[in-house]
Parts: sequence; structure tokens; C-alpha cells
Amino acid sequence: MVNITITIGLKDGVLDPEGRAIESSLNNLGYHEASEIKTGRLIRFTMNENDHARAHQKVSKMCETLLVNTVIEHYDITIEDLIEE
Amino acid sequence: MVNITITIGLKDGVLDPEGRAIESSLNNLGYHEASEIKTGRLIRFTMNENDHARAHQKVSKMCETLLVNTVIEHYDITIEDLIEE
Repeated sequence: MVNITITIGLKDGVLDPEGRAIESSLNNLGYHEASEIKTGRLIRFTMNENDHARAHQKVSKMCETLLVNTVIEHYDITIEDLIEE
Repeated sequence: MVNITITIGLKDGVLDPEGRAIESSLNNLGYHEASEIKTGRLIRFTMNENDHARAHQKVSKMCETLLVNTVIEHYDITIEDLIEE
């Protein structure tokens, strides 16, 4: 079993309206230090697979077919062995 | 300048309908290995602050007042020095 974390973000140059909204709200609240705010999504799950390379391949396929809009989004896959408690 | 990454997820026990939807869609596509799918949000920005402790304190306040619904969500803050190119 492995723990999978997929980090999804908008590609450079793609407008991030949520980030803009957060930036203007933070400014309105008096927080002026934050800039270039970018938002993203996280998907985490456990996978019944022990081989990291094979897990990576399968998760890439999941991303390309369902989880990520590869036209405007990029993704990173992190794979960690699940430590049984 | 520091790079801030805020990772926001639902607290344990809070229903994650997006995760459920992803799980059932993956099953329909023939991917049966993924289980316990949890979704989350990412917010990344640069901050005009060099002291990590002070940055952490400010970002915590931003989370508590605007960015995170602390009733149902938990958050993690990662702070990294920005390497000027």
C-alpha cells in the first residue's frame, strides 16, 4: 500500500480568479504582505500497489483521463510508503 | 521574501463529497486500486517578510480570519526562503 498525493495547479499564464479574489480580500482586511497568490487542488488517497514506478504510471493515467484538466493545469505526484500502525 | 504554501483539508469525520465523486468515477473507469480519497485546497503566495516566526504568525491569522473554515477544515503552513534568481 502506498499513499498518493496529487498536487494540481494552474499553468503559468492561466488566469487564477480565486487567487485574485483572495488577494483583494486580504488587502481589504489589512494584509498587504501577500502577493502572487496562486490556488491549487490536492487529491490524496491510498493505493493498493507496492511498486512505486507502477503506482506512478497508474496515477499519471488517472490524472490524464479524469483528475486533471491538462489544457490549463499541471500536476505533481508524490508517492510514499504507507506505514501500517 | 518567503514562499508560503498553505495546505487545507477537511477534518476527520467531515464528509468529502468531491472525494466520493472522484472515487466512484475512478471505479467506473476501471481504476479500483484507489481508496479513501480525500480532497483539499492549496494556497501559495510570496510574502514580504524575512522572519519565519513572524511570517507564520501572520499567515495563521490570515487562515483563521479568511482562508480556512476552521469548523470543518484544518491547515498546514509551509514557509521557505525565496531564492532570488
